[in-house]
Amino acid sequence: MNSALEPAHEPGPVTAEAPSNIAFIKYWGARDLEGDSEGPVPFNRSLSMTLDACRSICSASPLPEGSDDEIHWVQEPAGGRSSAAEEAPPAFVERTKRHLDRLREWSRQTAAPYAGGFRIATGNTFPSAAGIASSASGFTALTLAASACMGFDLTPRMLSALSRSSGSGSAARSAWGGYVEWPDGDGNAAVQILDERAWELCDLVAVVETGAKKVSSRDGHRRATSSPYFAPRLAALDGRLERVRSALCGRDFEALGDAVEEEGIDLHLIAMSSRPPVYYWSPGTIEVLAAVRELRADGVAAYATMDAGANVHVICQPADAGQVEERLVALGSVERVLRDRTGGPPVWRGGAEL
Amino acid sequence: MNSALEPAHEPGPVTAEAPSNIAFIKYWGARDLEGDSEGPVPFNRSLSMTLDACRSICSASPLPEGSDDEIHWVQEPAGGRSSAAEEAPPAFVERTKRHLDRLREWSRQTAAPYAGGFRIATGNTFPSAAGIASSASGFTALTLAASACMGFDLTPRMLSALSRSSGSGSAARSAWGGYVEWPDGDGNAAVQILDERAWELCDLVAVVETGAKKVSSRDGHRRATSSPYFAPRLAALDGRLERVRSALCGRDFEALGDAVEEEGIDLHLIAMSSRPPVYYWSPGTIEVLAAVRELRADGVAAYATMDAGANVHVICQPADAGQVEERLVALGSVERVLRDRTGGPPVWRGGAEL
Repeated sequence: MNSALEPAHEPGPVTAEAPSNIAFIKYWGARDLEGDSEGPVPFNRSLSMTLDACRSICSASPLPEGSDDEIHWVQEPAGGRSSAAEEAPPAFVERTKRHLDRLREWSRQTAAPYAGGFRIATGNTFPSAAGIASSASGFTALTLAASACMGFDLTPRMLSALSRSSGSGSAARSAWGGYVEWPDGDGNAAVQILDERAWELCDLVAVVETGAKKVSSRDGHRRATSSPYFAPRLAALDGRLERVRSALCGRDFEALGDAVEEEGIDLHLIAMSSRPPVYYWSPGTIEVLAAVRELRADGVAAYATMDAGANVHVICQPADAGQVEERLVALGSVERVLRDRTGGPPVWRGGAEL
Repeated sequence: MNSALEPAHEPGPVTAEAPSNIAFIKYWGARDLEGDSEGPVPFNRSLSMTLDACRSICSASPLPEGSDDEIHWVQEPAGGRSSAAEEAPPAFVERTKRHLDRLREWSRQTAAPYAGGFRIATGNTFPSAAGIASSASGFTALTLAASACMGFDLTPRMLSALSRSSGSGSAARSAWGGYVEWPDGDGNAAVQILDERAWELCDLVAVVETGAKKVSSRDGHRRATSSPYFAPRLAALDGRLERVRSALCGRDFEALGDAVEEEGIDLHLIAMSSRPPVYYWSPGTIEVLAAVRELRADGVAAYATMDAGANVHVICQPADAGQVEERLVALGSVERVLRDRTGGPPVWRGGAEL
């Protein structure tokens, strides 16, 4: 598909930053999770808000032909500044190398096939296992860094499709800022609905559990279709997605929040009715959900959503964020609150900073 | 329907005891909840285990024609022994009097119409708002006491149908001991599947919340059909009920528990996806559910189910009850554990003991 693509600049060391995202309409259930081809094929369209503070940072430098790829993990790098690299977990190294192989393979369809190795150093600005999609930002940052390192300037659509080929479906949505839907009509890339300047919203992540989840998202995706409620969920999702989209376009926060919270619960109803069932909630999840309903009863427009994990993303408008954060930190089961907001697209610059 | 029914003994003061029950297949969603006729018409068949220790005790004495009914509430009477009567809550008095009116109306179809009043004193052997169906045992005890006070000996089927006319569907199941299904083919009474001597199981109720629930069962029943998952639930329920029934008949505890826990979660999935949603779980519910899964991982066959509330009924076999109870009482959110087991049918005796 990219047979005519020419490199835009000299290959060399680069650093890329890519945002995570929080799904308002979830990606849950997919085919081809193991496929080596273009990545997972979701059963439904999803829609997310790109985040600002929660990002992955990735430096890529070329290594001579014949070199093994070097993968370094950097613990919570501060805004792209250099930091001590650590030993990366083996599963992470393997998944990263597989994606670098895909990117080299992809480059063979371009005007400048790349056969060298990469030195990769990468990390997230947010704690891992905090209920924030690190594979979304991580694979987007890796894809952007490696492609720029090879000399290419990708369009967001190309970045989206290539990032998704990593196997992380939600990575497809981190190629754009603002509000993003995946897949578009063509079926493999995400498309932007509104940019980040159109409407700023806050995402306060109430962290109630930091351990690794017991069932991976990948297994959850696989089991989703075994739920007797999966088919009726799909039937209802188009309507819910339209509610989210028209609330975004009309800047109607209550209509948005209502659909977002309904959907955040719904993913877990599917998980709990999958066979075997998947339980992601912890006692703290229930405490935060109740607190969010109480906030609304007190007149504060705040709405909860969860990804495949126990932590709760509380969506609110900037003017209410202080009050919402205060309520959340006071809860016994909340270890910390990460404050984020609508963010812009991924970026890259010359030089390996990590 | 009872036009030929003759009284079996002299009218006079009596005391009745009726058991509560825990549903293995839930009654959730009904028509005619307000009907003055034969009681609520459920959308699905339900199946329960009758309890032993959790009972309602009710004394009924005749009052002369023209007397107002007197309703007394007795706080946790000890095994039928007399105890100080307290002021009954107005809603309880009103619902009780309405049911006494129905029973007098019913007696007009018999050979001995009753036009007098009743002095009623009643209470439960278990704490209220503990996640135990007090309307099931309460209305069955009231129906049995009032009918015996009028001189009638009801068959279990007649007791079941008359108790259900109170508006409490689960009361239909408390007319029998052991394992009970409602409705039977005729649609208004419950029928026994196995008696209480056939298989003794334990129900350990982990009490994590004692406040009144925010949404009544009656409202939950009403909203159930608004869930997009209600129709697929109904479609799956026949199969799940057959799994429960064949596990009971084959004394296969793991097959039973598996279906029972699936169903216990399912009621709440319907509640949470009703519009507006109904949330019954508290943080403690999640803690207990996780502990029950851990017990199973440790080789102890224990399974959880919940009615429309936060408290968790943990079903196990007598030999494991000590170990299960130990694990439950050690949980931070468990206030107390009520230990119950398979129980027998309601009974009555002469004399007003309360």
